[in-house]
Amino acid sequence: EIYFRLKAELLQDPAFDFTDEGRQWIDRMLDYNVPGGKLNRGISVIDSYKLLKGTELSDDQVFLACALGWCIEWLQAYFLVLDDIMDNSHTRRGQLCWFRVDKVGLIAANDGIILRNHIPRILKRYFREKPYYVNLLDLFNEVEFQTASGQMLDLITTYQGEQDLSKYTMPVYRRIVQYKTAYYSFYLPVACALLMSGENLDHFIDVKNILVEMGTYFQVQDDYLDCFGDPEAIGKIGTDIEDFKCSWLVVQAMAHANESQKKILTENYGKSDSACIAKVKSIYKDLNLQNVFFEYERMSYEQLISSIEGLPGKAVQEVLKSFLHKIYKRQK
Amino acid sequence: EIYFRLKAELLQDPAFDFTDEGRQWIDRMLDYNVPGGKLNRGISVIDSYKLLKGTELSDDQVFLACALGWCIEWLQAYFLVLDDIMDNSHTRRGQLCWFRVDKVGLIAANDGIILRNHIPRILKRYFREKPYYVNLLDLFNEVEFQTASGQMLDLITTYQGEQDLSKYTMPVYRRIVQYKTAYYSFYLPVACALLMSGENLDHFIDVKNILVEMGTYFQVQDDYLDCFGDPEAIGKIGTDIEDFKCSWLVVQAMAHANESQKKILTENYGKSDSACIAKVKSIYKDLNLQNVFFEYERMSYEQLISSIEGLPGKAVQEVLKSFLHKIYKRQK
Ligand SMILES: [Mg+2]
Ligand SMILES: [Mg+2]
Ligand SMILES: [Mg+2]
Ligand SMILES: [Mg+2]
Ligand SMILES: [Mg+2]
Ligand SMILES: [Mg+2]
Repeated sequence: EIYFRLKAELLQDPAFDFTDEGRQWIDRMLDYNVPGGKLNRGISVIDSYKLLKGTELSDDQVFLACALGWCIEWLQAYFLVLDDIMDNSHTRRGQLCWFRVDKVGLIAANDGIILRNHIPRILKRYFREKPYYVNLLDLFNEVEFQTASGQMLDLITTYQGEQDLSKYTMPVYRRIVQYKTAYYSFYLPVACALLMSGENLDHFIDVKNILVEMGTYFQVQDDYLDCFGDPEAIGKIGTDIEDFKCSWLVVQAMAHANESQKKILTENYGKSDSACIAKVKSIYKDLNLQNVFFEYERMSYEQLISSIEGLPGKAVQEVLKSFLHKIYKRQK
Repeated sequence: EIYFRLKAELLQDPAFDFTDEGRQWIDRMLDYNVPGGKLNRGISVIDSYKLLKGTELSDDQVFLACALGWCIEWLQAYFLVLDDIMDNSHTRRGQLCWFRVDKVGLIAANDGIILRNHIPRILKRYFREKPYYVNLLDLFNEVEFQTASGQMLDLITTYQGEQDLSKYTMPVYRRIVQYKTAYYSFYLPVACALLMSGENLDHFIDVKNILVEMGTYFQVQDDYLDCFGDPEAIGKIGTDIEDFKCSWLVVQAMAHANESQKKILTENYGKSDSACIAKVKSIYKDLNLQNVFFEYERMSYEQLISSIEGLPGKAVQEVLKSFLHKIYKRQK
């Protein structure tokens, strides 16, 4: 398993003189936070690279693509560890959030930083001599900057000042999702595969825009499933309503509601009382948000397919279509 | 003022679609956290670069050296914002810690991340076409990794499990200080100047080791002044004793104390009660730690000078000596 190889090398990194205690801490922290996700982002690098190459990959090429995939998983772990602290969350991937684990506490903030710092260590070890090394560093830096900026927007919109639903509009929603989620989850894996294939990312702005659109669509699904999905299938019980999340559903609800419905939403959104949650859900049903979502899903799909088919290059089209078909009408 | 130019450019960064609110947030966050330090680290880049070049610098060269100096100040701000959260500190540089400012709270953790992400934005804007660009990225990445690793050691030594003074030994102390402080405060500025001068850092391992030694000496002074310095001169009242810090003083005290003195230290160190603090200080005096420090200071100075004079290259020697003379016998 490549994860174990990467971890073992990080724990022997000559740039730091580990104590046994320190090595054990990092070992446990990595096992707790890095694997255990759906690995979608990581797998996308390999799948995209295969489609772009058009031929079978050598063992070495597969290894390098996997290493980049794992870098994205490390990036994700870094964002999640810190996001859970800032959101004061309780569970993640079916276990306690790392900062809530006994004797961890706010050391978790520095662990997030360590996770982030592992990425350039991995990149340097395996890609230092590649012609695209500097582009890889620039790519990870730019995408991290965008994600942190999206996170800032999310935080100042959600937490700063009083709870005020009128701030949750479609342009605000789209901007948060685009930066906070879409760049690193959808653009980054494909961009890694493009760099490995020797491409110049400046020539793939359209591809980037389509992937960011797809990432937005993915997050809308996530928000929909949080309320209307099957908890068995998604593996958790949604809490967006009580958490006062800027969810696509509440944005649509506020956009479609009449004054009395808006009042009910305002009075009940963001409260953990189950009667309040039920009132919000009943407004969602009265406004037929399930159908609004199905319509949005159909339109997004059609627009994405037509954008993809407008691109030059069959290989790139295939990459994007396979990505889209993995997520279209997903139930989890 | 170069800081204002860098800030203005970051607030117009085309990689992120700022809202007015978001721009104001970052503007205020930067002004609160980035300037206002002693700027030692930033100034060191320019001073070192001048000495290495041996000739007057062009306006452009001065600007670039300043930009790198500010990158180090940004890095410092990032570490301090997060460190204050993790240490649950109250004040920093004579003002409230950023996370304690009204309506900031844990958004500060993401602000720390944003500060960190500004560095590659500045580097890309001004250094992308320089032959040493990739080395600059590698350097900042490696030094950040070492600092975060040192911070981890500090955190798991200080916070994990019960307060136990017997963990505070000289090797533990040296390792924490070397990684947490010396690399970024002492090695990084000189390494930046070396890269700008076209040098290969692999040929300056001895210089690195001397600077890390100097950084350790600097931190020992810092720990000494926290207890024995003039609060007027250093601009704050030390709190290392009540904070259960792994300070050079307590490490020396534990190394020199007899059993009954150890017992008193163990019972009183890390308590905010002023009677406890007084008991610790009186043991420091009984053990004559001021003289132990003066002796350490003299020996460090002599060893550093002799290491410096053993180096090839007069310009490098001058850089290190000027650095050393800035800190030798400092009172603040
Ligand atoms: Mg969250
Ligand atoms: Mg969040
Ligand atoms: Mg969700
Ligand atoms: Mg601190
Ligand atoms: Mg600290
Ligand atoms: Mg101090």
